[in-house]
Amino acid sequence: MRAAQAVGPDVGNVRIGSIDAVLATRHAGTRKLRLAYELVGPAGAPVVVVAGGISAHRHVAANAVDASSGWAEGLTGAGRAIDPSRQQLLAFDYVGACGGIDAPIDTADQADAVALLLDALGIDALQAFVGYSYGALVGLQLAARHPRRLHKLVAVSGAHRPHPYASAWRALQRKAVALGQLQCADEQGLSLARQFAMLSYRTPEEFGERFDAAPTLENGHVRVAAEDYLEAAGAKFVARIPATAWLRLSESIDLHQVDPTLIEVPTLVVAVEGDRLVPLSDAVGLVEGLGLNGRLRVLRSQYGHDAFLKETDRIDALLAAELGASGVRDAVPAIPHDFIGASV
Amino acid sequence: MRAAQAVGPDVGNVRIGSIDAVLATRHAGTRKLRLAYELVGPAGAPVVVVAGGISAHRHVAANAVDASSGWAEGLTGAGRAIDPSRQQLLAFDYVGACGGIDAPIDTADQADAVALLLDALGIDALQAFVGYSYGALVGLQLAARHPRRLHKLVAVSGAHRPHPYASAWRALQRKAVALGQLQCADEQGLSLARQFAMLSYRTPEEFGERFDAAPTLENGHVRVAAEDYLEAAGAKFVARIPATAWLRLSESIDLHQVDPTLIEVPTLVVAVEGDRLVPLSDAVGLVEGLGLNGRLRVLRSQYGHDAFLKETDRIDALLAAELGASGVRDAVPAIPHDFIGASV
Repeated sequence: MRAAQAVGPDVGNVRIGSIDAVLATRHAGTRKLRLAYELVGPAGAPVVVVAGGISAHRHVAANAVDASSGWAEGLTGAGRAIDPSRQQLLAFDYVGACGGIDAPIDTADQADAVALLLDALGIDALQAFVGYSYGALVGLQLAARHPRRLHKLVAVSGAHRPHPYASAWRALQRKAVALGQLQCADEQGLSLARQFAMLSYRTPEEFGERFDAAPTLENGHVRVAAEDYLEAAGAKFVARIPATAWLRLSESIDLHQVDPTLIEVPTLVVAVEGDRLVPLSDAVGLVEGLGLNGRLRVLRSQYGHDAFLKETDRIDALLAAELGASGVRDAVPAIPHDFIGASV
Repeated sequence: MRAAQAVGPDVGNVRIGSIDAVLATRHAGTRKLRLAYELVGPAGAPVVVVAGGISAHRHVAANAVDASSGWAEGLTGAGRAIDPSRQQLLAFDYVGACGGIDAPIDTADQADAVALLLDALGIDALQAFVGYSYGALVGLQLAARHPRRLHKLVAVSGAHRPHPYASAWRALQRKAVALGQLQCADEQGLSLARQFAMLSYRTPEEFGERFDAAPTLENGHVRVAAEDYLEAAGAKFVARIPATAWLRLSESIDLHQVDPTLIEVPTLVVAVEGDRLVPLSDAVGLVEGLGLNGRLRVLRSQYGHDAFLKETDRIDALLAAELGASGVRDAVPAIPHDFIGASV
């Protein structure tokens, strides 16, 4: 593995750049690839990687160079546990996110790419890797494969394996794309896949509150209350994500496997009760495997798997306690008592 | 509403026949339709209707005229609470099941059709209507609209309304069929719809046990352990059910609405904890609405919504207690203590 760096603008503690790297992948041979990143914060400050779901990217939050909204505005910023005035916040585009790799991608490949990126940026070790959903899987791989590159891992809504039911759900989403591709209805297929995925990201409790209206008849067919919302989510996704990128990153969740007993990095696992993709039982299994290196926090949220995008105050309180303990923050706020804390 | 009867073979207490009826439907105008039924058991014995899911039909179990397996072999028979040596078992094909009605169908239409069928067969009142899944919805409509036609209702895995999350799930299945129909890939669309439906009929617990195997790579794509099972379920369904029939019956679940406070027929509601289509909270809401006419039994089953097809011994024990109390059975067996009994 080797990497060459191309640094973009450096304004107001913001560096946006990319590296050209050669990566030996697990299933797709040796690949040349370009890894794009954003690094925001004062040079020399501790570095925290923030990694999100498969449709997340390097732009976590608005900054001095790119004022557009990021995918996790509520999770970082002034007063947050991850605060780019005191830490360096590093985020990157996942391998395959551009749609340029039409071959199986593994979470191990993502972790190796992170190690290359740290090499290129001269970052010896991260203060923490904070991964949400897919980012948690990548973080677990990084901890297993490159343990000296991070002091702490926070794995939110992700486990050491895909649950078989969640894998089946994703496989059917991929079949929806394939059905669309049968006759150039690619966008309809990807939209439908995303709509099915939304049901796995959210919960019946939320739908029960939001969409409790009678169906209508439209052109002689029944239309239920949630369809407007789901179709809008599908359309938004199609406009943003290439089908190949989505397919290969979806697959990579199902290829994911980490033996947690091999991880020696201190790891906080955050699970959400009612998450339909990552059941609490798998989070418990992960923490059991981590042994003394693992701790578990459980949130109750009607947002299920998407809780990390919606319950940002509660997530931040957990992060503050975790990262604050390493001295970055002056005070450790109390954890609200609606967290169910458990040491397994 | 009127009906003309055509009786088929009458062999060994089995009558297979159909009636031609005219039905004023709620959304599809006045329709001529043919309602096919099977009536099995000694003439003059109490009559029990057994009605299943949207893909169920008049052939509940093998009999002297039709020796092929029915959709609910385990739920009736010698020694069961519903025993065609002592009762008459009546079952019918749902309105629209042949695919001949391409217009919205309502569960109220199904209940009106049952009343016509009872008229034609000279059956004044049923000992009980036992409905599973869609059959439970039809039974609730029958109790609301034609209360004098049944002495008891047993509603298993069905409630007074569709849950908004389950409606969304079904709407996306219908979109899969529409996507297939875009390009004359009707069968692929219906198969995919059925595969998604299977995820709602079963549970993560079952999938976790059955499909806990690593994915494989096939033609450069990931294939997960549950795909063989799901594809087989899809293919079996496509061979059996016309797309139009499935679409219109799926819609009719989402059109379903009954005000339980208007039901005065004694009703046993059986719910399954972990049912992803009919959450326990909706079963509780139904029983609350039924007031003194309603009682609730809750089963725990890893089969979720499909428990009625898999936990036949436990369902039968509930039915035995319920139907036995009206004098058909000599002895009422004890309910196993793994039922959680609750009076709401």
